[in-house]
Amino acid sequence: MRATYLYEAGDVRVQDAPDPVLEQPTDAVVRVLRSCVCGSDLHPYRTMTAADGPVPMGHEFLGTVEELGSEVSGLERGDLVVAPFAFADNTCAFCREGLHTSCPDGGFFAAGTGGAQAEAIRVPQAQGTLVKLPKDVDHALLPSLLTLADVYGTGHHAAHQARVRPGDSVTVIGDGAVGLLAVLSARRLGAERIILMGRHKDRTDLGRFFGATDVVAARGEEGIAEVRDLTGGHGTRAVLEAVGHLPAYEMALGAVRPGGVISRVGVPQYDDAPVGFGSLFGPNVTLTGGPAPVRAYIDELLPGVLDGTVEPGRVVDRTVTLEQTPEGYRAMDRREALKVLVTP
Amino acid sequence: MRATYLYEAGDVRVQDAPDPVLEQPTDAVVRVLRSCVCGSDLHPYRTMTAADGPVPMGHEFLGTVEELGSEVSGLERGDLVVAPFAFADNTCAFCREGLHTSCPDGGFFAAGTGGAQAEAIRVPQAQGTLVKLPKDVDHALLPSLLTLADVYGTGHHAAHQARVRPGDSVTVIGDGAVGLLAVLSARRLGAERIILMGRHKDRTDLGRFFGATDVVAARGEEGIAEVRDLTGGHGTRAVLEAVGHLPAYEMALGAVRPGGVISRVGVPQYDDAPVGFGSLFGPNVTLTGGPAPVRAYIDELLPGVLDGTVEPGRVVDRTVTLEQTPEGYRAMDRREALKVLVTP
Repeated sequence: MRATYLYEAGDVRVQDAPDPVLEQPTDAVVRVLRSCVCGSDLHPYRTMTAADGPVPMGHEFLGTVEELGSEVSGLERGDLVVAPFAFADNTCAFCREGLHTSCPDGGFFAAGTGGAQAEAIRVPQAQGTLVKLPKDVDHALLPSLLTLADVYGTGHHAAHQARVRPGDSVTVIGDGAVGLLAVLSARRLGAERIILMGRHKDRTDLGRFFGATDVVAARGEEGIAEVRDLTGGHGTRAVLEAVGHLPAYEMALGAVRPGGVISRVGVPQYDDAPVGFGSLFGPNVTLTGGPAPVRAYIDELLPGVLDGTVEPGRVVDRTVTLEQTPEGYRAMDRREALKVLVTP
Repeated sequence: MRATYLYEAGDVRVQDAPDPVLEQPTDAVVRVLRSCVCGSDLHPYRTMTAADGPVPMGHEFLGTVEELGSEVSGLERGDLVVAPFAFADNTCAFCREGLHTSCPDGGFFAAGTGGAQAEAIRVPQAQGTLVKLPKDVDHALLPSLLTLADVYGTGHHAAHQARVRPGDSVTVIGDGAVGLLAVLSARRLGAERIILMGRHKDRTDLGRFFGATDVVAARGEEGIAEVRDLTGGHGTRAVLEAVGHLPAYEMALGAVRPGGVISRVGVPQYDDAPVGFGSLFGPNVTLTGGPAPVRAYIDELLPGVLDGTVEPGRVVDRTVTLEQTPEGYRAMDRREALKVLVTP
């Protein structure tokens, strides 16, 4: 088959690769119908050295079940399925608590499984991982359904971990797909005031469509000052951080109200950060978040996607073929595209 | 009057000082009946330079109202009152949310107000700050009632912010007064498994009395390994950190279960700490805590103290007169005393 590999920063190639096969009786093989390039793919795309490559790419996909291991039940060949970006058994103590990303039988797609920016992919723990979709689903819904694999579930995780509630005030940092879907999620959970920090007007316009009440284009101290001006000087109760760089964390510290919550879903590109009396501790600010256990959220989020109540797939603004995937990376890296969909 | 001042690390003096007077119509003056030396007083006692001194000391007290400003209602001269270590108006938006430590009209006792390790103290925002106690209260209860000013409320804050619930598993780091009362608080909120990390047997024995089910004397990697051994390899859902030094934070990272909460009430003696993928983010660990808004908790905690259901005053293991306060500091610094009570 054909599959996408990152060789080093800036060097993405689509090449021949072995067809995925069942390795465990709990595996499935899924033929990929749609996959995506993720904002988190851009981190290695910008920094990975040749010594760490080549690595298979892609962790968001939906497709049809092609092969099933002997221990997988509840699925049939030909089923249309969507997969969370982290596979999991969905039966262990962590999965039962909704923390599928910490499942001892689980892991992240791509390294180890092969990537999803490919014709097909091996799915470990298929029974716990794959979620069946209606077979006759309108293909116009596929982009929105695919966001359940990662970016919508991740935006929801940010809002969920911050315990966003009706009437709440929320700042969202970052106008990438996850940030915009954090806006949608905060709105869906009833937030009244949603300040979106982002610099790209086409994206922040979509953010307004999703429910942002205010947009702050400034960054750093100036951006913090604008958020404080908008909120009576104190900041918002929740800050959803969907970038992952230290300056975004620092903006979150400035934008959060005393007693509030910073919920991070941008993968941190730093290890240490301020947590002392002058940052988190003094004002009793809570820091939460992490990789989203999106499997735990699909059941809750799917109906609204199917009935059109929400349209998270609007974040997709470019579609490429699998062979054009390197161009998709370039477009996202240059911010010419917000979210790139990959078709076979 | 006589009052306690810290001149520099190790140099505590009791000396003559001006009698406190009403400065604002919202002030009161309270004659101190009991005060304490706090674990947090040991931080400046160990590190403060002469350039920063002398500073008045003491932020935990109960006593009788001696003078009242013209705008204070609900209190009378002679009332027995306890004060939270942070004064607050108890009417602003933050106070109504239970975050008295962020009250714009509030602040911390000692600098600005004079210290509580003294014969008397000025209390700003007296109406919002002071809580009346029964006039005929048994004096044997005074140590327990005084813990409502700080250490019991702070231990409760740790457990409350970690949302400790019936059946929960909790690790408490630190066997000082706050750590031991975090044990009591976790037990009171229904925690089933409470692992106390501490090295002083007399203290950890009191921790067992308060509800600790296990004691881990080892520290660092060895201590973490013991906690993990006790918890099926994963750690406890909540970790209450009552020390404030970076190694305690690092132990908390090792002792917390994925998806769990680290709740800090030890005043951090560091600014930056690990918060990246390998520490907080990857396992979706939440970091919370801060200075305890103990005023918010007194109404909930007072009845159990008055009826003897809990005996937080058991942390007091030495009583000194005001003139002996420097000896109280020395005893706590050398860990010869757990918690020193100061009488007039």
